[in-house]
Amino acid sequence: MSARRAVVLLSGGLDSATCLAIAVRDGLEAHALSVDYGQRHRAELEAARRVATVLHAASHRVVKVDLRSLGGSALTSDAIEVPKDRAPEEIGHGIPVSYVPARNTVMLSVATAAAEVLDADAIYVGVNALDSSGYPDCRPEFLEAFRAVARLGTRRGVEGRPFDLRAPLLALSKAGIAKLALSLGVPVAETLSCYDPLPARSPVGPAVHCGRCDACSLRRKGFREAGLADPTTYEG
Amino acid sequence: MSARRAVVLLSGGLDSATCLAIAVRDGLEAHALSVDYGQRHRAELEAARRVATVLHAASHRVVKVDLRSLGGSALTSDAIEVPKDRAPEEIGHGIPVSYVPARNTVMLSVATAAAEVLDADAIYVGVNALDSSGYPDCRPEFLEAFRAVARLGTRRGVEGRPFDLRAPLLALSKAGIAKLALSLGVPVAETLSCYDPLPARSPVGPAVHCGRCDACSLRRKGFREAGLADPTTYEG
Repeated sequence: MSARRAVVLLSGGLDSATCLAIAVRDGLEAHALSVDYGQRHRAELEAARRVATVLHAASHRVVKVDLRSLGGSALTSDAIEVPKDRAPEEIGHGIPVSYVPARNTVMLSVATAAAEVLDADAIYVGVNALDSSGYPDCRPEFLEAFRAVARLGTRRGVEGRPFDLRAPLLALSKAGIAKLALSLGVPVAETLSCYDPLPARSPVGPAVHCGRCDACSLRRKGFREAGLADPTTYEG
Repeated sequence: MSARRAVVLLSGGLDSATCLAIAVRDGLEAHALSVDYGQRHRAELEAARRVATVLHAASHRVVKVDLRSLGGSALTSDAIEVPKDRAPEEIGHGIPVSYVPARNTVMLSVATAAAEVLDADAIYVGVNALDSSGYPDCRPEFLEAFRAVARLGTRRGVEGRPFDLRAPLLALSKAGIAKLALSLGVPVAETLSCYDPLPARSPVGPAVHCGRCDACSLRRKGFREAGLADPTTYEG
Protein backbone atom coordinates (compact mmCIF):
# COMPACT_ATOMS: atom_id res chain seq x y z
CA MET A 1 0.00 0.00 0.00
CA SER A 2 1.41 3.39 -0.84
CA ALA A 3 1.04 5.99 1.84
CA ARG A 4 -1.05 9.06 1.12
CA ARG A 5 -1.23 10.79 4.49
CA ALA A 6 1.42 11.19 7.17
CA VAL A 7 1.91 12.59 10.61
CA VAL A 8 5.32 14.25 10.86
CA LEU A 9 6.87 14.98 14.26
CA LEU A 10 8.18 18.51 13.97
CA SER A 11 10.25 19.92 16.80
CA GLY A 12 11.28 22.93 14.74
CA GLY A 13 14.92 21.85 14.49
CA LEU A 14 16.89 21.14 11.33
CA ASP A 15 16.32 17.38 11.35
CA SER A 16 12.57 17.34 11.81
CA ALA A 17 12.14 20.18 9.30
CA THR A 18 14.08 18.13 6.77
CA CYS A 19 11.91 15.17 7.62
CA LEU A 20 8.79 17.21 6.90
CA ALA A 21 10.29 18.33 3.58
CA ILE A 22 10.90 14.67 2.68
CA ALA A 23 7.29 13.73 3.46
CA VAL A 24 6.06 16.59 1.28
CA ARG A 25 8.48 15.62 -1.50
CA ASP A 26 7.21 12.05 -1.24
CA GLY A 27 3.81 13.39 -2.20
CA LEU A 28 2.13 12.85 1.14
CA GLU A 29 -0.49 15.01 2.78
CA ALA A 30 1.81 15.89 5.66
CA HIS A 31 0.30 16.79 9.04
CA ALA A 32 2.93 18.33 11.28
CA LEU A 33 2.78 17.59 15.00
CA SER A 34 4.77 19.42 17.65
CA VAL A 35 4.82 18.51 21.30
CA ASP A 36 4.91 21.25 23.91
CA TYR A 37 6.49 19.25 26.72
CA GLY A 38 7.59 22.17 28.83
CA GLN A 39 10.94 22.42 27.08
CA ARG A 40 13.35 25.15 28.06
CA HIS A 41 13.72 26.01 24.37
CA ARG A 42 10.04 26.69 23.76
CA ALA A 43 11.08 29.02 20.96
CA GLU A 44 11.36 25.86 18.86
CA LEU A 45 7.56 25.70 18.79
CA GLU A 46 7.45 29.07 17.05
CA ALA A 47 10.14 27.83 14.66
CA ALA A 48 7.99 24.76 13.98
CA ARG A 49 5.03 26.97 13.13
CA ARG A 50 7.05 28.93 10.59
CA VAL A 51 8.61 25.82 9.07
CA ALA A 52 5.22 24.11 8.73
CA THR A 53 3.90 27.14 6.88
CA VAL A 54 6.88 27.49 4.53
CA LEU A 55 6.92 23.78 3.70
CA HIS A 56 3.16 23.65 3.09
CA ALA A 57 2.24 21.15 5.76
CA ALA A 58 -1.43 20.18 5.47
CA SER A 59 -1.88 21.14 9.12
CA HIS A 60 0.14 21.84 12.25
CA ARG A 61 -0.90 20.75 15.73
CA VAL A 62 0.80 21.49 19.04
CA VAL A 63 -0.08 18.94 21.72
CA LYS A 64 0.79 19.65 25.35
CA VAL A 65 2.41 16.92 27.42
CA ASP A 66 3.64 18.17 30.76
CA LEU A 67 7.02 16.47 31.13
CA ARG A 68 8.27 19.50 33.07
CA SER A 69 6.19 18.28 36.01
CA LEU A 70 8.47 15.21 36.02
CA GLY A 71 11.76 17.05 35.39
CA GLY A 72 14.95 15.01 35.29
CA SER A 73 16.56 16.76 32.31
CA ALA A 74 18.42 19.97 31.56
CA LEU A 75 15.67 20.64 29.02
CA THR A 76 12.77 20.33 31.46
CA SER A 77 14.26 21.43 34.77
CA ASP A 78 15.72 24.82 35.60
CA ALA A 79 17.80 23.12 38.28
CA ILE A 80 19.97 21.35 35.67
CA GLU A 81 22.18 23.44 33.40
CA VAL A 82 22.51 22.86 29.68
CA PRO A 83 26.09 21.66 29.03
CA LYS A 84 28.12 24.10 26.97
CA ASP A 85 31.38 24.06 25.02
CA ARG A 86 31.78 20.30 24.86
CA ALA A 87 34.12 19.15 22.11
CA PRO A 88 32.30 17.52 19.17
CA GLU A 89 34.15 14.26 19.85
CA GLU A 90 32.79 14.22 23.41
CA ILE A 91 29.22 14.38 22.17
CA GLY A 92 27.48 11.07 21.70
CA HIS A 93 29.54 9.19 24.28
CA GLY A 94 27.35 8.44 27.26
CA ILE A 95 23.92 9.89 27.87
CA PRO A 96 24.07 13.65 28.56
CA VAL A 97 21.89 15.58 31.03
CA SER A 98 19.97 17.02 28.08
CA TYR A 99 18.40 13.59 27.63
CA VAL A 100 14.70 13.98 28.40
CA PRO A 101 13.52 10.72 29.98
CA ALA A 102 11.54 8.68 27.46
CA ARG A 103 10.95 11.73 25.26
CA ASN A 104 10.89 9.95 21.93
CA THR A 105 8.64 7.25 23.35
CA VAL A 106 6.25 9.96 24.51
CA MET A 107 6.42 11.85 21.22
CA LEU A 108 5.96 8.76 19.09
CA SER A 109 3.02 7.71 21.24
CA VAL A 110 1.33 11.07 20.68
CA ALA A 111 2.15 10.82 16.96
CA THR A 112 0.58 7.35 16.94
CA ALA A 113 -2.55 8.75 18.58
CA ALA A 114 -2.69 11.54 15.99
CA ALA A 115 -2.11 9.10 13.13
CA GLU A 116 -4.93 6.93 14.40
CA VAL A 117 -7.33 9.90 14.58
CA LEU A 118 -6.27 11.27 11.17
CA ASP A 119 -6.21 7.78 9.62
CA ALA A 120 -2.67 8.50 8.45
CA ASP A 121 -0.68 5.74 6.78
CA ALA A 122 2.74 6.83 7.89
CA ILE A 123 4.55 8.50 10.78
CA TYR A 124 7.75 10.39 10.05
CA VAL A 125 10.31 11.05 12.74
CA GLY A 126 13.60 12.87 12.25
CA VAL A 127 15.76 10.82 14.58
CA ASN A 128 19.36 10.41 13.61
CA ALA A 129 21.67 7.79 15.07
CA LEU A 130 24.97 8.89 13.56
CA ASP A 131 25.54 12.48 14.67
CA SER A 132 23.26 12.21 17.67
CA SER A 133 23.72 13.41 21.22
CA GLY A 134 23.90 9.87 22.57
CA TYR A 135 20.23 9.47 23.41
CA PRO A 136 19.04 5.86 23.75
CA ASP A 137 15.76 6.66 22.02
CA CYS A 138 17.45 7.64 18.76
CA ARG A 139 18.73 4.15 17.98
CA PRO A 140 17.43 1.89 15.21
CA GLU A 141 16.58 -0.91 17.63
CA PHE A 142 14.39 1.47 19.64
CA LEU A 143 12.48 2.48 16.51
CA GLU A 144 12.02 -1.14 15.53
CA ALA A 145 10.53 -1.87 18.95
CA PHE A 146 8.21 1.12 18.71
CA ARG A 147 7.04 -0.08 15.31
CA ALA A 148 5.70 -3.22 17.01
CA VAL A 149 3.97 -1.14 19.69
CA ALA A 150 2.25 1.04 17.09
CA ARG A 151 1.12 -2.05 15.20
CA LEU A 152 -0.16 -3.99 18.21
CA GLY A 153 -1.68 -1.14 20.19
CA THR A 154 -3.89 0.51 17.59
CA ARG A 155 -7.09 0.04 15.63
CA ARG A 156 -5.20 0.31 12.35
CA GLY A 157 -2.82 -2.40 13.44
CA VAL A 158 -5.69 -4.71 14.39
CA GLU A 159 -7.27 -4.00 11.00
CA GLY A 160 -4.08 -5.10 9.27
CA ARG A 161 -3.15 -1.60 8.15
CA PRO A 162 -0.27 -0.75 10.50
CA PHE A 163 1.41 2.62 10.36
CA ASP A 164 4.60 2.83 8.38
CA LEU A 165 7.06 4.37 10.85
CA ARG A 166 9.68 6.17 8.77
CA ALA A 167 12.95 7.62 9.99
CA PRO A 168 14.56 8.81 6.76
CA LEU A 169 17.47 10.56 8.48
CA LEU A 170 18.43 7.65 10.69
CA ALA A 171 21.68 6.77 8.92
CA LEU A 172 22.63 10.22 7.63
CA SER A 173 25.44 12.37 8.98
CA LYS A 174 24.61 15.90 10.06
CA ALA A 175 26.47 17.07 6.94
CA GLY A 176 24.22 14.87 4.82
CA ILE A 177 21.14 16.30 6.53
CA ALA A 178 22.35 19.88 5.95
CA LYS A 179 22.83 19.17 2.24
CA LEU A 180 19.47 17.48 1.96
CA ALA A 181 17.74 20.31 3.83
CA LEU A 182 19.06 22.92 1.40
CA SER A 183 18.26 20.81 -1.65
CA LEU A 184 14.65 20.38 -0.47
CA GLY A 185 14.06 24.05 0.24
CA VAL A 186 13.96 23.80 4.01
CA PRO A 187 14.02 27.34 5.47
CA VAL A 188 17.16 26.52 7.43
CA ALA A 189 17.55 29.95 9.02
CA GLU A 190 14.06 29.57 10.48
CA THR A 191 14.79 26.24 12.15
CA LEU A 192 15.94 26.16 15.75
CA SER A 193 18.19 23.37 17.03
CA CYS A 194 19.53 25.14 20.12
CA TYR A 195 18.73 23.90 23.64
CA ASP A 196 19.25 27.30 25.22
CA PRO A 197 18.36 29.96 22.65
CA LEU A 198 18.44 33.73 23.08
CA PRO A 199 15.58 36.02 22.12
CA ALA A 200 15.19 37.00 18.47
CA ARG A 201 17.01 40.16 17.40
CA SER A 202 13.98 41.49 15.57
CA PRO A 203 10.24 41.05 16.02
CA VAL A 204 10.04 38.86 12.91
CA GLY A 205 13.40 37.12 13.19
CA PRO A 206 14.13 33.64 14.53
CA ALA A 207 15.50 33.03 18.02
CA VAL A 208 19.28 33.19 18.23
CA HIS A 209 21.29 29.96 18.68
CA CYS A 210 23.61 29.99 21.70
CA GLY A 211 26.33 28.35 19.59
CA ARG A 212 27.69 26.43 22.58
CA CYS A 213 25.31 23.59 23.48
CA ASP A 214 25.60 20.08 22.02
CA ALA A 215 22.81 20.72 19.52
CA CYS A 216 24.54 23.88 18.24
CA SER A 217 27.88 22.04 18.03
CA LEU A 218 26.40 19.26 15.94
CA ARG A 219 24.57 21.74 13.70
CA ARG A 220 27.71 23.79 13.08
CA LYS A 221 29.76 20.70 12.42
CA GLY A 222 27.20 19.53 9.88
CA PHE A 223 27.36 22.67 7.76
CA ARG A 224 31.14 22.87 8.09
CA GLU A 225 31.69 19.28 7.03
CA ALA A 226 29.24 19.68 4.17
CA GLY A 227 31.22 22.71 2.97
CA LEU A 228 28.04 24.79 3.04
CA ALA A 229 27.47 28.31 4.27
CA ASP A 230 25.66 28.08 7.59
CA PRO A 231 22.73 30.55 7.61
CA THR A 232 22.24 30.21 11.37
CA THR A 233 22.62 33.17 13.72
CA TYR A 234 24.83 32.07 16.62
CA GLU A 235 25.50 34.16 19.71
CA GLY A 236 28.77 32.56 20.75
CA MET B 1 17.14 -7.93 41.22
CA SER B 2 14.15 -7.46 43.43
CA ALA B 3 12.20 -4.29 42.82
CA ARG B 4 12.02 -1.74 45.56
CA ARG B 5 10.32 1.22 43.90
CA ALA B 6 7.49 1.29 41.37
CA VAL B 7 5.46 3.68 39.29
CA VAL B 8 1.82 2.61 39.25
CA LEU B 9 -0.55 3.93 36.60
CA LEU B 10 -3.66 4.90 38.52
CA SER B 11 -6.74 5.96 36.58
CA GLY B 12 -8.92 5.83 39.66
CA GLY B 13 -10.92 2.82 38.44
CA LEU B 14 -11.25 -0.54 40.13
CA ASP B 15 -8.49 -2.25 38.15
CA SER B 16 -5.75 0.32 38.61
CA ALA B 17 -6.63 0.76 42.28
CA THR B 18 -6.24 -3.00 42.74
CA CYS B 19 -2.95 -2.80 40.89
CA LEU B 20 -1.73 -0.13 43.32
CA ALA B 21 -2.80 -2.31 46.25
CA ILE B 22 -0.78 -5.19 44.78
CA ALA B 23 2.34 -3.04 44.44
CA VAL B 24 1.97 -1.92 48.06
CA ARG B 25 1.36 -5.50 49.20
CA ASP B 26 4.50 -6.54 47.29
CA GLY B 27 6.43 -4.20 49.57
CA LEU B 28 7.28 -1.59 46.98
CA GLU B 29 7.53 2.13 47.45
CA ALA B 30 4.62 2.80 45.11
CA HIS B 31 4.42 6.11 43.26
CA ALA B 32 0.99 6.57 41.74
CA LEU B 33 0.72 8.32 38.38
CA SER B 34 -2.50 9.57 36.85
CA VAL B 35 -2.81 11.08 33.41
CA ASP B 36 -5.15 13.98 32.84
CA TYR B 37 -5.74 13.48 29.14
CA GLY B 38 -8.86 15.55 28.82
CA GLN B 39 -11.12 12.64 29.62
CA ARG B 40 -14.86 13.19 29.84
CA HIS B 41 -14.83 11.36 33.16
CA ARG B 42 -12.35 13.68 34.86
CA ALA B 43 -13.95 12.75 38.15
CA GLU B 44 -11.73 9.67 38.01
CA LEU B 45 -8.76 11.92 38.82
CA GLU B 46 -10.38 12.87 42.11
CA ALA B 47 -11.09 9.18 42.73
CA ALA B 48 -7.42 8.45 42.03
CA ARG B 49 -6.38 11.03 44.60
CA ARG B 50 -8.54 9.44 47.29
CA VAL B 51 -7.44 5.92 46.41
CA ALA B 52 -3.75 6.89 46.48
CA THR B 53 -4.22 8.33 49.96
CA VAL B 54 -6.16 5.37 51.36
CA LEU B 55 -3.68 2.85 49.95
CA HIS B 56 -0.66 4.78 51.21
CA ALA B 57 0.99 5.46 47.87
CA ALA B 58 4.42 7.05 48.38
CA SER B 59 3.33 9.89 46.10
CA HIS B 60 0.66 10.77 43.54
CA ARG B 61 1.34 12.76 40.38
CA VAL B 62 -1.13 13.94 37.78
CA VAL B 63 0.52 14.60 34.41
CA LYS B 64 -1.39 16.47 31.71
CA VAL B 65 -1.38 15.12 28.17
CA ASP B 66 -3.83 16.90 25.93
CA LEU B 67 -5.39 14.07 23.94
CA ARG B 68 -8.65 16.04 23.81
CA SER B 69 -7.00 18.29 21.23
CA LEU B 70 -6.80 15.21 18.99
CA GLY B 71 -10.27 13.82 19.77
CA GLY B 72 -11.36 10.66 18.02
CA SER B 73 -12.98 8.97 21.00
CA ALA B 74 -16.22 9.14 22.98
CA LEU B 75 -14.01 9.80 26.01
CA THR B 76 -12.18 12.80 24.53
CA SER B 77 -14.72 14.33 22.18
CA ASP B 78 -18.10 15.74 23.08
CA ALA B 79 -19.21 15.00 19.52
CA ILE B 80 -19.15 11.23 20.12
CA GLU B 81 -21.62 9.74 22.59
CA VAL B 82 -20.66 7.13 25.18
CA PRO B 83 -22.46 3.89 24.22
CA LYS B 84 -25.03 2.83 26.77
CA ASP B 85 -27.02 -0.31 27.59
CA ARG B 86 -24.96 -2.71 25.52
CA ALA B 87 -25.40 -6.34 26.55
CA PRO B 88 -22.36 -7.76 28.39
CA GLU B 89 -21.87 -10.32 25.60
CA GLU B 90 -21.61 -7.49 23.06
CA ILE B 91 -18.74 -5.88 24.94
CA GLY B 92 -15.28 -6.88 23.84
CA HIS B 93 -16.22 -7.74 20.27
CA GLY B 94 -14.78 -5.13 17.97
CA ILE B 95 -13.24 -1.87 19.07
CA PRO B 96 -15.85 0.50 20.57
CA VAL B 97 -15.97 4.28 20.18
CA SER B 98 -14.77 4.61 23.77
CA TYR B 99 -11.34 3.47 22.55
CA VAL B 100 -8.98 6.41 22.99
CA PRO B 101 -6.42 6.24 20.17
CA ALA B 102 -3.11 4.93 21.49
CA ARG B 103 -4.06 5.76 25.08
CA ASN B 104 -2.17 2.98 26.77
CA THR B 105 0.89 3.67 24.63
CA VAL B 106 0.73 7.30 25.75
CA MET B 107 0.16 6.40 29.40
CA LEU B 108 2.90 3.80 29.48
CA SER B 109 5.29 6.24 27.83
CA VAL B 110 4.59 8.82 30.54
CA ALA B 111 4.97 6.10 33.17
CA THR B 112 8.30 5.17 31.61
CA ALA B 113 9.42 8.80 31.78
CA ALA B 114 8.37 8.97 35.44
CA ALA B 115 10.08 5.67 36.22
CA GLU B 116 13.27 6.95 34.64
CA VAL B 117 13.18 10.17 36.70
CA LEU B 118 12.31 8.36 39.94
CA ASP B 119 14.77 5.53 39.22
CA ALA B 120 11.93 3.07 39.77
CA ASP B 121 12.55 -0.60 39.11
CA ALA B 122 9.04 -1.53 38.07
CA ILE B 123 6.01 -0.12 36.29
CA TYR B 124 2.58 -1.48 37.22
CA VAL B 125 -0.35 -1.21 34.85
CA GLY B 126 -3.85 -2.51 35.50
CA VAL B 127 -4.72 -3.70 32.02
CA ASN B 128 -6.94 -6.70 31.78
CA ALA B 129 -7.38 -8.77 28.64
CA LEU B 130 -10.19 -11.07 29.71
CA ASP B 131 -13.11 -8.83 30.69
CA SER B 132 -11.90 -5.88 28.65
CA SER B 133 -13.77 -3.52 26.40
CA GLY B 134 -12.02 -4.80 23.29
CA TYR B 135 -9.20 -2.28 23.21
CA PRO B 136 -6.14 -3.33 21.19
CA ASP B 137 -3.79 -1.83 23.76
CA CYS B 138 -4.93 -4.16 26.55
CA ARG B 139 -3.54 -7.29 24.91
CA PRO B 140 -0.55 -9.28 26.18
CA GLU B 141 1.30 -8.93 22.86
CA PHE B 142 1.01 -5.14 23.08
CA LEU B 143 2.49 -5.15 26.57
CA GLU B 144 5.32 -7.40 25.44
CA ALA B 145 6.13 -4.96 22.63
CA PHE B 146 6.06 -2.00 25.01
CA ARG B 147 8.43 -3.83 27.33
CA ALA B 148 11.02 -3.79 24.53
CA VAL B 149 10.43 -0.07 23.91
CA ALA B 150 10.93 0.74 27.60
CA ARG B 151 14.12 -1.30 27.63
CA LEU B 152 15.63 0.12 24.44
CA GLY B 153 14.55 3.74 24.77
CA THR B 154 15.78 4.55 28.27
CA ARG B 155 18.90 5.19 30.30
CA ARG B 156 18.06 2.34 32.65
CA GLY B 157 17.71 -0.03 29.74
CA VAL B 158 21.09 1.02 28.32
CA GLU B 159 22.59 0.51 31.76
CA GLY B 160 21.28 -3.05 31.83
CA ARG B 161 18.65 -2.32 34.47
CA PRO B 162 15.43 -2.33 32.42
CA PHE B 163 12.10 -1.61 34.04
CA ASP B 164 10.04 -4.59 35.01
CA LEU B 165 6.67 -3.91 33.37
CA ARG B 166 4.06 -5.71 35.42
CA ALA B 167 0.41 -6.27 34.54
CA PRO B 168 -0.80 -8.43 37.43
CA LEU B 169 -4.47 -8.30 36.37
CA LEU B 170 -3.88 -9.27 32.77
CA ALA B 171 -5.36 -12.76 32.95
CA LEU B 172 -7.94 -12.19 35.71
CA SER B 173 -11.68 -12.00 35.22
CA LYS B 174 -13.51 -8.93 36.52
CA ALA B 175 -14.92 -11.19 39.23
CA GLY B 176 -11.40 -12.18 40.19
CA ILE B 177 -10.35 -8.53 40.32
CA ALA B 178 -13.35 -7.63 42.51
CA LYS B 179 -12.44 -10.39 44.97
CA LEU B 180 -8.80 -9.38 45.00
CA ALA B 181 -9.69 -5.72 45.49
CA LEU B 182 -11.75 -6.46 48.58
CA SER B 183 -9.14 -8.82 50.01
CA LEU B 184 -6.44 -6.16 49.63
CA GLY B 185 -8.44 -3.39 51.26
CA VAL B 186 -9.06 -1.35 48.11
CA PRO B 187 -11.62 1.37 48.92
CA VAL B 188 -13.91 0.07 46.20
CA ALA B 189 -16.70 2.58 46.75
CA GLU B 190 -14.17 5.36 46.15
CA THR B 191 -13.02 4.00 42.79
CA LEU B 192 -14.65 5.25 39.61
CA SER B 193 -14.88 3.04 36.54
CA CYS B 194 -17.69 4.90 34.76
CA TYR B 195 -17.12 6.69 31.43
CA ASP B 196 -19.99 9.10 31.96
CA PRO B 197 -20.38 9.68 35.70
CA LEU B 198 -22.88 11.95 37.44
CA PRO B 199 -21.94 14.44 40.15
CA ALA B 200 -21.43 13.18 43.68
CA ARG B 201 -24.53 13.20 45.90
CA SER B 202 -22.68 14.77 48.79
CA PRO B 203 -19.70 17.12 49.02
CA VAL B 204 -17.48 14.30 50.31
CA GLY B 205 -18.98 11.41 48.36
CA PRO B 206 -17.66 9.81 45.18
CA ALA B 207 -19.09 10.56 41.74
CA VAL B 208 -22.08 8.41 40.81
CA HIS B 209 -21.68 5.65 38.22
CA CYS B 210 -24.13 5.91 35.30
CA GLY B 211 -24.67 2.15 35.45
CA ARG B 212 -25.18 1.91 31.70
CA CYS B 213 -21.82 2.34 29.91
CA ASP B 214 -19.54 -0.60 29.07
CA ALA B 215 -17.27 0.10 32.04
CA CYS B 216 -20.24 0.05 34.44
CA SER B 217 -21.56 -3.16 32.84
CA LEU B 218 -18.24 -4.94 33.28
CA ARG B 219 -17.91 -3.69 36.86
CA ARG B 220 -21.41 -4.85 37.81
CA LYS B 221 -20.88 -8.19 36.14
CA GLY B 222 -17.65 -8.66 38.11
CA PHE B 223 -19.26 -8.22 41.51
CA ARG B 224 -22.29 -10.29 40.51
CA GLU B 225 -20.21 -13.19 39.23
CA ALA B 226 -17.98 -13.04 42.30
CA GLY B 227 -21.07 -13.28 44.50
CA LEU B 228 -20.02 -10.10 46.30
CA ALA B 229 -22.06 -7.13 47.42
CA ASP B 230 -21.29 -4.27 45.03
CA PRO B 231 -20.66 -1.10 47.07
CA THR B 232 -20.91 1.12 43.97
CA THR B 233 -23.57 3.80 43.67
CA TYR B 234 -25.19 3.47 40.23
CA GLU B 235 -27.68 5.92 38.79
CA GLY B 236 -29.42 3.58 36.36
